[in-house]
Amino acid sequence: MINKKLTYLKEWLIESKIDCALLTDPENIAYYSGFKSEPHERILALAIFPSTDPFLFTPSLDMKDAQNSEWSFSVYGYLDNENPWSILSKKIQEATTSTECFAIEKSFLTVERYEKLCLFFKNSTFENVSEKIQEMKLIKDSSEIKKMIEAGKWADKALEIGFNTIKEGISEEEIVAEIDYQLKKQGIKEMSFETMVLTGDHAASPHGVPGARKIKKNDMVLFDLGVVYNGYTSDVTRMAIFGKPSKEAEKVYSIVLKAHQAAIAAVKPGISAGQLDKIARDIITNEGYGEYFTHRLGHGLGSNVHEFPSIMEGSELIIKEGMCFSIEPGIYIPEVVGVRIEDCLYVTKNGCELFTTTPTAFKSIV
Amino acid sequence: MINKKLTYLKEWLIESKIDCALLTDPENIAYYSGFKSEPHERILALAIFPSTDPFLFTPSLDMKDAQNSEWSFSVYGYLDNENPWSILSKKIQEATTSTECFAIEKSFLTVERYEKLCLFFKNSTFENVSEKIQEMKLIKDSSEIKKMIEAGKWADKALEIGFNTIKEGISEEEIVAEIDYQLKKQGIKEMSFETMVLTGDHAASPHGVPGARKIKKNDMVLFDLGVVYNGYTSDVTRMAIFGKPSKEAEKVYSIVLKAHQAAIAAVKPGISAGQLDKIARDIITNEGYGEYFTHRLGHGLGSNVHEFPSIMEGSELIIKEGMCFSIEPGIYIPEVVGVRIEDCLYVTKNGCELFTTTPTAFKSIV
Repeated sequence: MINKKLTYLKEWLIESKIDCALLTDPENIAYYSGFKSEPHERILALAIFPSTDPFLFTPSLDMKDAQNSEWSFSVYGYLDNENPWSILSKKIQEATTSTECFAIEKSFLTVERYEKLCLFFKNSTFENVSEKIQEMKLIKDSSEIKKMIEAGKWADKALEIGFNTIKEGISEEEIVAEIDYQLKKQGIKEMSFETMVLTGDHAASPHGVPGARKIKKNDMVLFDLGVVYNGYTSDVTRMAIFGKPSKEAEKVYSIVLKAHQAAIAAVKPGISAGQLDKIARDIITNEGYGEYFTHRLGHGLGSNVHEFPSIMEGSELIIKEGMCFSIEPGIYIPEVVGVRIEDCLYVTKNGCELFTTTPTAFKSIV
Repeated sequence: MINKKLTYLKEWLIESKIDCALLTDPENIAYYSGFKSEPHERILALAIFPSTDPFLFTPSLDMKDAQNSEWSFSVYGYLDNENPWSILSKKIQEATTSTECFAIEKSFLTVERYEKLCLFFKNSTFENVSEKIQEMKLIKDSSEIKKMIEAGKWADKALEIGFNTIKEGISEEEIVAEIDYQLKKQGIKEMSFETMVLTGDHAASPHGVPGARKIKKNDMVLFDLGVVYNGYTSDVTRMAIFGKPSKEAEKVYSIVLKAHQAAIAAVKPGISAGQLDKIARDIITNEGYGEYFTHRLGHGLGSNVHEFPSIMEGSELIIKEGMCFSIEPGIYIPEVVGVRIEDCLYVTKNGCELFTTTPTAFKSIV
């Protein structure tokens, strides 16, 4: 049985008069075939045709895994001492009568591989399929959203572990180690990115790296983390206060929270990404902190923790049901205070649902 | 001051009549400039010319880091709302009178970026610099080897942690979590790859993934792991036995150890990679286990845990002083027993030195 994603891509091939879409990005291959594999320096490919059956092309040592995956069409393999391009080109020629026009992932394929492919298809033209795939990936289906809900629950658990770890004298990197350790023991193999724990004014750097800095009384602690579950990511940011916040910290926190809540309340099909950014940014700007909100409001996520859509100033992209992205306003006053609050969500028919449910109130640890 | 690596590459540009080497692989940029940075979807480039000074080209938000790094030449930046290719091409034209011939990393640059570059240099030709860089990276200098010695010491520590963690009923993934946790607490940010702990016949799969399998009495435990230290990797494999090994396990272990020792004893400048593989393979084959040694003898490593040289059957590559690679013979009898012993080494004037010093004797845990 052919899945909906493949059907949709095949329709695009027919419309665009393309004879073969040849994908080599393992993430895109997993997206269309359900077979997730990391070929390292070897070649993994998925060939899709407008009217004949697609096939997977894998290193021989991965063939069995591909055959045992949810992929139900042919799988061809090649040995390390064989020329993969020669075998692949033969299989393509067997599968289609015309090879005039290919679609390739120009934002993934290297020049070296492209030149090898051209050697076997000297008279062909090569269109770009990267943008079409990005566009398709914008809308998640229910099975993808289900995985992201699970990934979100794990992120909530990770935050809870982090909150419970806070104590006087513990360092940022010790808290990171504890979070990752507790999750790993429960079978989590991968985080969405390196877990970020920043304390005190260290949190005022949006790209700060956790280090040996130890928590002192009345420090704020920023947690930014995510968990990969069944190939899908989560991403969340919360702040805790170990003791009592300063007046300024409290004020900044309440402004960021207001911006965060207002943007989430506004998410629904039909609004633009730029409008969402503006709703949050206006609140922060009107309070006089506009210059300290130094990044876009949010980013898409899915199998990758940074995908489209980009929720940024001026974007006219229209939000649609099934899109998944973060809302993460922040205020960073260098060497003084840094606050960010982040949730990821999926767009529903009339609004949105969050993947993470950890309360956004300023978490006080005593 | 220009470093030796840059000088060597400039000489190659002169010989090859190339006007500009334009590097965009962050690892290669770190190798030649000392500036290590991950630009994600943005563009980071290093432009090197035969007779004028090189420059770094970074996203604006990384410019300060680049200026504070060991890089002593110009750094140019671009904002997110600017066209990086337009700015980069102008800077190149300011730095050199001729742009007839470029050298690019064809095994890294995507077709999309290549096409953008071509728009600005319509009449230029583009040679491949990837192989030249690979060839240069084959030989490590003393500062690189120093970092790899440290990375090796950390790998020894990781093994010690792993050995101490073994007890009845603990699972593979719990041991992995413990190793990574203890290292992270000591400031280690990154492992060379996902730490591998496999028990019992699970170890008979060379690409096995640690899971919930619990250690039982008389199980063998395989550890394959490495630590990244200052941008350089280590890689080591050892086996422990929790109780008493079977006769077959003992026999297989002693054969693998013999192959491992013989290959290491043979490493010196002048021997070929293929000869090294043969020395180990012949020992295993003569004992009747040849069909179960299903991979090459070793791989190079450096800033990446898989680099050249490849120590494999038939390779005529001549081993030289300063090369760094693994020696890791193995015997994998599916569902029965799996044994691998691995050390990485650097080639000296007359032989070699190992990066790891954990004893290779079958480690017995009681």
